[in-house]
Amino acid sequence: MECSEHCAGSFGHFNLGPHTHDVPMTLHQKNRQAMLQALASVPSESCSVVLLEGGKSETHHDTDHEELFRQECYFHYLFGVKEPDCLGLVDLQTGKSHLFIPRLPESYSTWLGKIYGPDYWVKVYSVDECHYTDELVTILHLLGCKRILSLAGGLNTDSGLPHAGLRSLEKEIQENNFHEDREILFPVLRECRVVKNKEEIDVLRYACQVSADAHKAVMRFAKPGMMEYDLEAKFRYEIYHRYGCRNVGYTCICCAGESGAILHYGHAGAPNSKVIKPGDMCLLDMGGEYHHYTADITRSWPVDGKFTETQREIYTTVYEAQEAVMRSMRPGVSWPEMHRLADRVICENLKKFGYLNGDVDEMMKEFVGSLFMPHGLGHLLGLTTHDVGGYLDGIQRSTEPGLKSLRCGRTLLEGMVITVEPGVYFNRSVLEPAFSRPNQAQFMNVEKIKKMFAFGGVRIEDDVLVTATGIENLSAGVPRSIDEIEAWIAGGRGE
Amino acid sequence: MECSEHCAGSFGHFNLGPHTHDVPMTLHQKNRQAMLQALASVPSESCSVVLLEGGKSETHHDTDHEELFRQECYFHYLFGVKEPDCLGLVDLQTGKSHLFIPRLPESYSTWLGKIYGPDYWVKVYSVDECHYTDELVTILHLLGCKRILSLAGGLNTDSGLPHAGLRSLEKEIQENNFHEDREILFPVLRECRVVKNKEEIDVLRYACQVSADAHKAVMRFAKPGMMEYDLEAKFRYEIYHRYGCRNVGYTCICCAGESGAILHYGHAGAPNSKVIKPGDMCLLDMGGEYHHYTADITRSWPVDGKFTETQREIYTTVYEAQEAVMRSMRPGVSWPEMHRLADRVICENLKKFGYLNGDVDEMMKEFVGSLFMPHGLGHLLGLTTHDVGGYLDGIQRSTEPGLKSLRCGRTLLEGMVITVEPGVYFNRSVLEPAFSRPNQAQFMNVEKIKKMFAFGGVRIEDDVLVTATGIENLSAGVPRSIDEIEAWIAGGRGE
Ligand SMILES: [Mn+2]
Ligand SMILES: [Mn+2]
Repeated sequence: MECSEHCAGSFGHFNLGPHTHDVPMTLHQKNRQAMLQALASVPSESCSVVLLEGGKSETHHDTDHEELFRQECYFHYLFGVKEPDCLGLVDLQTGKSHLFIPRLPESYSTWLGKIYGPDYWVKVYSVDECHYTDELVTILHLLGCKRILSLAGGLNTDSGLPHAGLRSLEKEIQENNFHEDREILFPVLRECRVVKNKEEIDVLRYACQVSADAHKAVMRFAKPGMMEYDLEAKFRYEIYHRYGCRNVGYTCICCAGESGAILHYGHAGAPNSKVIKPGDMCLLDMGGEYHHYTADITRSWPVDGKFTETQREIYTTVYEAQEAVMRSMRPGVSWPEMHRLADRVICENLKKFGYLNGDVDEMMKEFVGSLFMPHGLGHLLGLTTHDVGGYLDGIQRSTEPGLKSLRCGRTLLEGMVITVEPGVYFNRSVLEPAFSRPNQAQFMNVEKIKKMFAFGGVRIEDDVLVTATGIENLSAGVPRSIDEIEAWIAGGRGE
Repeated sequence: MECSEHCAGSFGHFNLGPHTHDVPMTLHQKNRQAMLQALASVPSESCSVVLLEGGKSETHHDTDHEELFRQECYFHYLFGVKEPDCLGLVDLQTGKSHLFIPRLPESYSTWLGKIYGPDYWVKVYSVDECHYTDELVTILHLLGCKRILSLAGGLNTDSGLPHAGLRSLEKEIQENNFHEDREILFPVLRECRVVKNKEEIDVLRYACQVSADAHKAVMRFAKPGMMEYDLEAKFRYEIYHRYGCRNVGYTCICCAGESGAILHYGHAGAPNSKVIKPGDMCLLDMGGEYHHYTADITRSWPVDGKFTETQREIYTTVYEAQEAVMRSMRPGVSWPEMHRLADRVICENLKKFGYLNGDVDEMMKEFVGSLFMPHGLGHLLGLTTHDVGGYLDGIQRSTEPGLKSLRCGRTLLEGMVITVEPGVYFNRSVLEPAFSRPNQAQFMNVEKIKKMFAFGGVRIEDDVLVTATGIENLSAGVPRSIDEIEAWIAGGRGE
């Protein structure tokens, strides 16, 4: 059946035109199924439902300015709904899904669009039933609900923030004597999100492929004299115009030269606003988002299209680290061990090229590698850039420099999607203090390192799916080796 | 002095490269001066300061995903600061300005950028003094402060929401026995924002000119078969790449055909996601933002580049209404009267072209015009799209259809910047109910109107500065008459 307005083609599907990826709502049905299976072992001493609150429409402070709405992630995981102010329920007895939509005022049709009833939204999102949010309590009673499983209080290990759960429904829950359980659901649903199903992988593959294409376009577009933000503008144009990605998964990090040493450059206080100079290394960390799933890709290359000897040294160091990790990845491998492996390869190469000297085992004991790569090797990827489930409950993060910034402390599982993003940076505020710490300085060629403060850094970041026997690199479409990069840029200049 | 990092060139200035508009921080010094003058008549029985809280860095729900930070508007008005988590103070005795910045952790320099001290920020933002936010109470005591003027509770007449004031400082204020006055400041500062100074006008002129240029590029870019969002992608690319506008002032409204009747199309639930068909009218409402000041421009044109007879009729109706208003605008003119004027011209033209019949005065008494233009004629423009100060305290909005949606109920003042945006729409959910209301249906050519439901609508929106003798159209750079539009599009096709 036709539904051009909310499904672009047919009910139960999402896409943004025939040239974009078609997402079947079976993706979310499977997500709900996975949750039901994982909850099957939970004692259901009383009639229970899972209840989630979707994101709300919000304004900028006291104004009527609304930023473009982005759905709350857990709600999107289970229901795939683009609209704000909804609720979602799964009945653990029957397995049925219920979507609750706001009752819109008549004026909505003048200002925001045609108003559709519950029957329509059942078809758009492939749920079993749809009601209005003001019918929630009635439906809960009708289902005989005694216990509500919520996400309230569950801790996000990247932000350290608790989940808000059913904040706006607290009064209704209390007044009607529903028992809200805040323990059972969170660890279960968080873990469901860690291993991606086929349809989720298809969306992530699309986000990665189109972001890879856009990175390629930017490589040929960049010229000395442009502003760093010109590369952001080009990237966003390519992913949106050609592939329907209206959002990026995170603020574009577009560094040229020295800015490359600032890991999360590009925010409002450092808005990619420098001029790109001849000879600069560009470090671009940019990923498009599609149906809320995001890519996260970094490439580093000389704006002139040809690597200098120094650029080759640092790039090779990072490339070798990434290669070593990608060759070793498979289910069962410890991710902290992969971080240590990258650290080791970086130290070995920096020694080979004369930036470090001495015994690599000894320098690793003094965490010399973390002075050049202060961040973690990579993180789970999905509905957020730093996706949930990186640390199981009770597992503490390491306090070691470098490892303490690792967002995933687990062994790899088939179906995880994770970034592999080693880097080497020459950040003055990290390195200068180390020059006066003898335990680290003894390994450092201080004069050679000091000359690199204008260099910035190199990061290479790919998004990989862990398969039964190894990995699939979802972002393999962007040139990555020095030869590939130089050939690609030269091709764009007719050289 | 050089400051490429936060001032792109020299201290006390903001720009995004030599090809972009240079904003002197005297803009904000003048804003503070205007406030001090307006507060001069306020009895200062005790030592008083104005204290404002800047916007805070925020994450998407419980995740560590941060949207790009946008400053709170009143804080930006007085201080022009791009960074989150600051405070601003103006001492009413001395007139001195004090900026308070967060004390950043050492890790900031690894992740977000070099850390600078107060002396640096004094120069970047041309304030008199700069301290850390944890020094606020000390400084207040040092200044001998007894009374703090805050914005708390002041009502935004567009959103109906109160200002949050000094929400996160409530404890400090109470514990130190400062008297917080919530009455004096809000109406004064709101009114300061209504009349723009020269530097503000320069920024708005720039935002309008570059948005006009981008609209022109989109006119030649659009082709049947594209998606509506392709036009948004192109617009955003042009304003950012060519002119440094990273943000739009509001979500781009990109309608083709029927979507044109939905006034705020383009939001997450209707994301500009239809295919543009041959023969469609495009209605594009898009404005770039620069240094937080925004343009708000709408143009409507046939995607084929040639107006059909029907498209000419509706376009001429709206164009004549806009012309009549722009010819009549000058200081002292009532804006609600301008709305009525537009309404009258629209009714007259719809009668001339056979959509309406009967006496225009009579149909105006029945609010027939508001069935075709359900929104207001225009709104103040500045740091927000719907800028503050549209209604003075005690002035109630009209409850009449049409006029009740007018966001400004005042007489025009020299230095106001306001949008002039009449429109005619064929929205089924607005018009169909009127067919069965005899008082309105008697004037309507129902059969002719019914045939227009696939047409969508036409809006023409310009941003004008009220001058001493009339207006300056800041968005005059985009073709507006039928002839201009056809010639411009034809020129891009080599016709
Ligand atoms: Mn990453
Ligand atoms: Mn407007």
